Amino acid sequence: MSSSAARITAVDTYDIRFPTSRELDGSDAMNPDPDYSAAYVVLRTGSDDTADGLEGHGFTFTIGRGNDVQVAAIEALRPHILGRPVDELCADPGALSRDLIGDSQLRWLGPEKGVMHMAIGAVVNAVWDLAAKRAEKPLWQLLADATPEWLVSQVDFRYIADVLTPEDALGLLAQGREGATERAALLKERGFPGYTTSPGWLGYSDEKLTRLARQAVADGFTQIKLKVGADLADDVRRCRVARSVVGPDIRIAIDANQRWNVDEAIEWTKALAEFDPYWIEEPTSPDDVLGHATIRKAIAPVKVATGEHVQNRIIFKQLLQAGAIDVLQIDAARVGGVNENLAILLLAAKFGVPVCPHAGGVGLCELVQHLSMFDYVALSGTTEDRVIEYVDHLHAHFLDPVVIREGHYMAPTSPGFSATMRPESIAEFTFPGGTFWAADLDRQKEQAA
Amino acid sequence: MSSSAARITAVDTYDIRFPTSRELDGSDAMNPDPDYSAAYVVLRTGSDDTADGLEGHGFTFTIGRGNDVQVAAIEALRPHILGRPVDELCADPGALSRDLIGDSQLRWLGPEKGVMHMAIGAVVNAVWDLAAKRAEKPLWQLLADATPEWLVSQVDFRYIADVLTPEDALGLLAQGREGATERAALLKERGFPGYTTSPGWLGYSDEKLTRLARQAVADGFTQIKLKVGADLADDVRRCRVARSVVGPDIRIAIDANQRWNVDEAIEWTKALAEFDPYWIEEPTSPDDVLGHATIRKAIAPVKVATGEHVQNRIIFKQLLQAGAIDVLQIDAARVGGVNENLAILLLAAKFGVPVCPHAGGVGLCELVQHLSMFDYVALSGTTEDRVIEYVDHLHAHFLDPVVIREGHYMAPTSPGFSATMRPESIAEFTFPGGTFWAADLDRQKEQAA
Repeated sequence: MSSSAARITAVDTYDIRFPTSRELDGSDAMNPDPDYSAAYVVLRTGSDDTADGLEGHGFTFTIGRGNDVQVAAIEALRPHILGRPVDELCADPGALSRDLIGDSQLRWLGPEKGVMHMAIGAVVNAVWDLAAKRAEKPLWQLLADATPEWLVSQVDFRYIADVLTPEDALGLLAQGREGATERAALLKERGFPGYTTSPGWLGYSDEKLTRLARQAVADGFTQIKLKVGADLADDVRRCRVARSVVGPDIRIAIDANQRWNVDEAIEWTKALAEFDPYWIEEPTSPDDVLGHATIRKAIAPVKVATGEHVQNRIIFKQLLQAGAIDVLQIDAARVGGVNENLAILLLAAKFGVPVCPHAGGVGLCELVQHLSMFDYVALSGTTEDRVIEYVDHLHAHFLDPVVIREGHYMAPTSPGFSATMRPESIAEFTFPGGTFWAADLDRQKEQAA
Repeated sequence: MSSSAARITAVDTYDIRFPTSRELDGSDAMNPDPDYSAAYVVLRTGSDDTADGLEGHGFTFTIGRGNDVQVAAIEALRPHILGRPVDELCADPGALSRDLIGDSQLRWLGPEKGVMHMAIGAVVNAVWDLAAKRAEKPLWQLLADATPEWLVSQVDFRYIADVLTPEDALGLLAQGREGATERAALLKERGFPGYTTSPGWLGYSDEKLTRLARQAVADGFTQIKLKVGADLADDVRRCRVARSVVGPDIRIAIDANQRWNVDEAIEWTKALAEFDPYWIEEPTSPDDVLGHATIRKAIAPVKVATGEHVQNRIIFKQLLQAGAIDVLQIDAARVGGVNENLAILLLAAKFGVPVCPHAGGVGLCELVQHLSMFDYVALSGTTEDRVIEYVDHLHAHFLDPVVIREGHYMAPTSPGFSATMRPESIAEFTFPGGTFWAADLDRQKEQAA
């Protein structure tokens, strides 16, 4: 089979769940017991030929229950993908993105939000992974090397053209090319700044917080994040502990995970202002554009950040239009994949708002680093006030895990989107039949007996 | 088994699809070939005792592909419902609503939007159906008879309390009680005004449009609706035909089904202004609060209407805050069920914006009439500028179908939420194993052979 004749021969899905709730990793004011999970998809292209045998991997991150619903949504997309010529797919992932978003019957289930839209994101990201592998480049470099014209062709301007036109986008990308070669070299040398959420989970004791915050500074991070929002007295105590450990020069972001109404967000953030929080993240519903604008006005100079649960480019557009956020947090696996994130990065660039991605979860660090690195090299052109979230768990399950040095994400060098999970991890943590979960069920049965 | 001991003994789901695409019923600028479908759920309470044997029926309306994903989402809620005491459930459907929305792992898949949220709506609505059957009242009456205090207890004020407090809601409902008895009597006599979309589907010829528009006026409707947005020249012609048929006194609403960007919406609506459209419905993305506000300013006195795809109370809150809509269109099966629609009706009442529900589809007329009738009798207190959409298909599949007289929805008298589909319809149109689809598959195989 020649490369040009290769087609998508299989769309395989996996319900993968890690038992993270048992350690309180990832606990916050809204999510007390997450089991970090992935609704995982592999696009296969046939295995006879090395070149054609490359696979595209993608996933939606979930926190446990409902991962099966997310897998069902990915399955519903199979007819759109199976049999597609691989060369065409990889030359124009935007065409697939438009087909998936444009399926009017599936669109009814959103539109462009929630389970169905995240499923589209998983599949679209898998195509980008495949395209980058075939181009033998890490995704950030594939994007940074692409022409502005082609990148613009990958963006769906529907519902955002009142604020960002294709001409605007072309101008921003043309400007972004200036100095891109030098920035790519700097990126390979120094990496992209990160910040760490590892010290700040709600379920951790003050001792663990102290130890991990100290470690974060020793590791070279210049920003940490604390979860807040469950109990004000606890938050005051934990912020005081953290500030005393890291000193005045390390930024402390705080994150309420949507716990508050607008008024509560304002009061609570003001009550923590003495500890000089850098930003308050997800102070209220991600849907509440006007609420965020009200909060931002009331709590300045504390910044407002949101985005990990923002459903699509249309809400991001409005957050920017309304002056509702100081920091825009993309998530690689919440919206419709790389194509929609290109639109969001362009919107942020147009408004001059820094992008500080949400990460953590399962594989979100692996994915989103590529988008920030592209943004730095070929769009915004700066890392000033830009940091990628970092959480130090579950990376070992990936073939090309993130590499952190001195608080920086080092630029990936392997071809692809860093999305490929180790086969042995898939075999162990597939739910409910994988070896871990099967043994777990046996243990439960024994205890019950 | 005594009534007080009854529990939910089974949560049965059905993937039901009607082949409506074959007649172009329901075709519009975004949805050319819908197969009207229901992800259907039945809550069973045991069959030994007549009183306990009452069932709660609910559903999400979809337009075909993906109905299986929606069924999977309802299935994911089963553990929350199975075994619950029926008396408790029916005395406080809000408690279940809070439990379902509050499941942090499932919440991650929204939050409060898309497939997972609509699944919650189906289950919550099924509980209300059961509650109304056990109370031996149609749902509108159960709601209208309830105390303001209890109704307020059924509303989740999270993320809307900056605009509507429990005290506000109590005041509106207390005011709504004044004259409620008289209005209930009037409602039983005259019904609630409807309008019809039947003439206006995009796939229909001008002859069919003419015939159905004339019929609509003869049937007593004072408003019709035309789908627009695919081709301007066609829309001009069709609006001219419709206006010439119905004369100047019948309202003609137009509906773009989200086809346009903001600028296009303004230009296109202005181009149709000579035909005196009453409202433009879904001019752009339902997520674009600020876009609707811009459109509304530009096209007055044509009104702006939206809501059938608005995901939750938080977006509705902002549409009202931003002065973005003249007409609020609730949908009975898009948001989190009756409880969230109570919140939305209260928000509309607070802002004095008339509610004109979206209906049609499968069973949406049957459901939503109850909400408008409650709104009239015990909240807004008026039918002025209020009309419920009516489409004249698929009603025969329901045990308690809507009754239309002189362009009015007659008040349901049977206990429940009018949600129960005929068993023979379920048996025929369950996908893919029901008798219709099985025979259809046989036909396709024969033709292929």
